[in-house]
Amino acid sequence: MIKKLVDQPLVTHINVREFGYKKMPSKLKFLGQQEAINIDQELFNDYGFSVDQLMELAGLSCAQAVHQTYEKGPILVLAGPGNNGGDGLVCARHLSLFGFQPTILYPKPSKSQLMQNLVKQTTLMDIPYIDHVPEEVDSVYKVIVDAFFGFSFRPPLREPFNQILDKISKCRTPIFSIDIPSGWNVETGPPEDGTPKILPHSLISLTAPKKCAEHFSGIHFLGGRFVPRALEDKYELNLPEYPGSQGFLRL
Amino acid sequence: MIKKLVDQPLVTHINVREFGYKKMPSKLKFLGQQEAINIDQELFNDYGFSVDQLMELAGLSCAQAVHQTYEKGPILVLAGPGNNGGDGLVCARHLSLFGFQPTILYPKPSKSQLMQNLVKQTTLMDIPYIDHVPEEVDSVYKVIVDAFFGFSFRPPLREPFNQILDKISKCRTPIFSIDIPSGWNVETGPPEDGTPKILPHSLISLTAPKKCAEHFSGIHFLGGRFVPRALEDKYELNLPEYPGSQGFLRL
Repeated sequence: MIKKLVDQPLVTHINVREFGYKKMPSKLKFLGQQEAINIDQELFNDYGFSVDQLMELAGLSCAQAVHQTYEKGPILVLAGPGNNGGDGLVCARHLSLFGFQPTILYPKPSKSQLMQNLVKQTTLMDIPYIDHVPEEVDSVYKVIVDAFFGFSFRPPLREPFNQILDKISKCRTPIFSIDIPSGWNVETGPPEDGTPKILPHSLISLTAPKKCAEHFSGIHFLGGRFVPRALEDKYELNLPEYPGSQGFLRL
Repeated sequence: MIKKLVDQPLVTHINVREFGYKKMPSKLKFLGQQEAINIDQELFNDYGFSVDQLMELAGLSCAQAVHQTYEKGPILVLAGPGNNGGDGLVCARHLSLFGFQPTILYPKPSKSQLMQNLVKQTTLMDIPYIDHVPEEVDSVYKVIVDAFFGFSFRPPLREPFNQILDKISKCRTPIFSIDIPSGWNVETGPPEDGTPKILPHSLISLTAPKKCAEHFSGIHFLGGRFVPRALEDKYELNLPEYPGSQGFLRL
């Protein structure tokens, strides 16, 4: 089900060879929630990026990391109503172009024009939408892309996400989380209070990892290669060098 | 100055191996001007794509093709006032992130918000803007990215573009044209009427090649991997399969 990673020319190897970074660069910054929000605002307000632009690059890097890690086949994409869900919808669209068969579970459709457009694009590309977690998840899907909540998430987790994540947490299908494993506290990590706890097989941090990623021990990617050098310096992100023209790397 | 292409794991090789295409798939459609305009309109009006989204993917694929073909170093980007120029500005931004040193010549700044935002992003990333073709082009720049005019271009070529292209046509620096070699007729190819004729070293066609590309014998890439299957079928584009998760390929 999962491609053997040792057979792959993994980005981390190139990275280690070319730039001398350790597997996890020791100075790589893990962002607190407010810091992540501030960087996001600065990209939009000061640098004049549009959400469309950065979401496209972020979602594309997610799809590329999924493509490198999992076999082609049916994929379940969980999309929330905010920007993390938008990354998921963009990811689903690119996965479809890469030859995967995504299905989207998008329980709380957003009224924002951008999200409606993303739904239109994916629908016209014949990507099916479903309204509940199917019983046969483990026998059908190669991977579950978790794009319910991102770095703006604050507990508690509400219905129907609580119920859906409860079901997902009992599945054996590997989970690929975008930016934050949904339900986790953005800073302190896995929930301890009865919130369904998902344990992703892989995680892609966007822009820079958030503090919760320090509690994550699976395959960890970095994506969203759009941070201007001045912004990286200002927030002391200490990002590793991306190899070549690639939009993601393995930490 | 130009990377030896034989040393590169060129996309076309993968393509040929994996999908059995010839160097130029015989049925690949070359679009007329009106057809190119129609496809563009359909992507925006029917599929709900924003210009920001598609320009980001298009410009990124241009930068990736430049990265694969030319050595890192100073690059001169010629940006026109329309969407082709926007692709060029996006390309310059990604080239900067890839470690190239782009300089932008953008003689007719557009008032559109998107173009102004692209200028802001590139300016804040310390990419210099210049207002004329420097005398020392050939000794300074590794490649000239030509993003003056795209598939909407209709002659005649006006000032200052006429004058700039006249200078560029006398340079020895290789030219990488985005979608249309500027000054060429979109359908009939190189101008025969005294319009300065540039002869690009490489060309990246976006979405699908335009008819003028039949007159082009240099390195020909395809980029802009975002065409939904239904649209490809409707216009009988017969696009080759892109390899893996890559955003461009060599035809």
